[in-house]
Amino acid sequence: MTFVTISDEFSFIKKISPKILKQTSLIKGIGDDAALIRGNSEVEEIVCMDTMVEGVHFNEKTMSPFDIGYKALAVNVSDIAAMGGLPSFYLVSIAIPKAWNERELLQIYEGMNEIANIFNMDLIGGDTVSSKAALVITVTVLGYIEKGKHLLRSNAVAGDVLFVTGTLGDSAAGLELLLKNGRHYSFTNEQQFLVSRHQKPFPRVNEGRILAKRNRVALNDVSDGIASEAAEIAEASQVAIVIEKHLLPQSDELKKFPKEKQISWMLNGGEDFELIGAVSKEEWEILKSEFEKEKRSITKIGYVESGKGEVYLKEQDTLTPLLKAGYNHFK
Amino acid sequence: MTFVTISDEFSFIKKISPKILKQTSLIKGIGDDAALIRGNSEVEEIVCMDTMVEGVHFNEKTMSPFDIGYKALAVNVSDIAAMGGLPSFYLVSIAIPKAWNERELLQIYEGMNEIANIFNMDLIGGDTVSSKAALVITVTVLGYIEKGKHLLRSNAVAGDVLFVTGTLGDSAAGLELLLKNGRHYSFTNEQQFLVSRHQKPFPRVNEGRILAKRNRVALNDVSDGIASEAAEIAEASQVAIVIEKHLLPQSDELKKFPKEKQISWMLNGGEDFELIGAVSKEEWEILKSEFEKEKRSITKIGYVESGKGEVYLKEQDTLTPLLKAGYNHFK
Repeated sequence: MTFVTISDEFSFIKKISPKILKQTSLIKGIGDDAALIRGNSEVEEIVCMDTMVEGVHFNEKTMSPFDIGYKALAVNVSDIAAMGGLPSFYLVSIAIPKAWNERELLQIYEGMNEIANIFNMDLIGGDTVSSKAALVITVTVLGYIEKGKHLLRSNAVAGDVLFVTGTLGDSAAGLELLLKNGRHYSFTNEQQFLVSRHQKPFPRVNEGRILAKRNRVALNDVSDGIASEAAEIAEASQVAIVIEKHLLPQSDELKKFPKEKQISWMLNGGEDFELIGAVSKEEWEILKSEFEKEKRSITKIGYVESGKGEVYLKEQDTLTPLLKAGYNHFK
Repeated sequence: MTFVTISDEFSFIKKISPKILKQTSLIKGIGDDAALIRGNSEVEEIVCMDTMVEGVHFNEKTMSPFDIGYKALAVNVSDIAAMGGLPSFYLVSIAIPKAWNERELLQIYEGMNEIANIFNMDLIGGDTVSSKAALVITVTVLGYIEKGKHLLRSNAVAGDVLFVTGTLGDSAAGLELLLKNGRHYSFTNEQQFLVSRHQKPFPRVNEGRILAKRNRVALNDVSDGIASEAAEIAEASQVAIVIEKHLLPQSDELKKFPKEKQISWMLNGGEDFELIGAVSKEEWEILKSEFEKEKRSITKIGYVESGKGEVYLKEQDTLTPLLKAGYNHFK
């Protein structure tokens, strides 16, 4: 999420958040990856909405029409994953400049189709309007989770293990390669891995489902970088989070870049769409073996202490406060 | 809905509509005012999504930031009304150019608040991103309706009475006044009525609730003009619809305009956000008295015959085929 017009996105969201809620079926409104609504006797409903803008989140150099569609849906499915849920339906609203032709537009929907087919989702509505300049695509995803099993940012407790799925920083590295060479360049296999991590992030729904079986998990998806995501968990849970630098999981492909880029991208690159969270030490042991059984990747990257929303980076026994540094795309 | 990039919006939507549906809880996907999903044992869920673009649906001359927010939510609530339902939650995604300041943005949300307060809706999520040129605002509304009571476009049957709520053409007349004079002009009371009908359409939720008590109602909201909305009902129901010109309800304020403008705006002006529909003759008599009791306006404007999706305008016993002529905003 980028926000250049107003000084502080966080304070703006606070200003527009309703002071009084009217619908008694609401479980969680603004303030997590998605909203939660009471459903039938067995499930809770999940709903989220994300927008991608041409020239801000993608451009002709970085993403094909197919990639744009794929990613616009994937980032929303990632929000459902971060609640522990399963996605079911999506709606798409697209504002289209004259420069785009019908073939390209259909490719955008084909890209969404790839994700929808994997997760058994149906396209059920939306809007198509004309745009003066840039293409703007907004997706709403509906999903569900077993009653009471949702995973909130506010669930972390002092003493917890901090973990992340997969590897970090790949998407930012891929973006650098794309901005330098353009998407039509003949990338090596190693480079292509990073580029794909930027263009076609795979939402961690299956990982979220393993996590939702545990008793208490705080969870966020990595859209803005783990420094920022950890801060959201720390603030919502009113704890302090310590990220241990030497534990951060990275791909072999990322290791080819200069050291300072690696660490910056792992902490602040964003758009990896992995899951970051916290569980008790006892649950962590169970989680580790379940992820191993399912051949999925999860890594301990730190711990939770008592506090008031702080995040620290630990390096050779030195703690440095980590400032939220969001992802600035093409700025 | 405007669509200038691709030749035929209807055929495009057909192309992107899923051929196979995967989720068994879906009652109605693409092809009506909103999607319908099985909820708990008592209700069905309704979801819809609409977008407004600066320079396409509004500009500095026609709408204040407050109006933009009000209308962006109102047009979505109108879709819920067209299913016979009640709105409950909304999500807002807004792409913001640098030219807009925080005060104006907060006014947009205050405009939405006015509608939300009337209908007891809660803002539960969304996204805020930067935009290169125009402001783009997309709203998703969730609602519900008693099980089996939803009102589809496909419900019309030969022999039905065709009706519309309120008056027609006011919004287009208001837009003409705004484009000519700008929104800061000192309008007469009569002019201000038309201007308000364009800037702040009131969604016909209460009317939809009266309609939902009847046994079989075909229903659409008037976003694109009744010629186009009637065609959607005629196509979905596979019937012919006859609109009787002399029955079209118009405000006293509209009557001040040249005759040819009146009829063009009533048929094709759009954005009146009234409800147009069809019911059996027996139900029509009950409806009339119920609308009278509730002091709400409803008018018979024609009838339904057997056919294959045609719409005719009847004038002194002559039938003229009506072509779908959508609303072109600022084109």
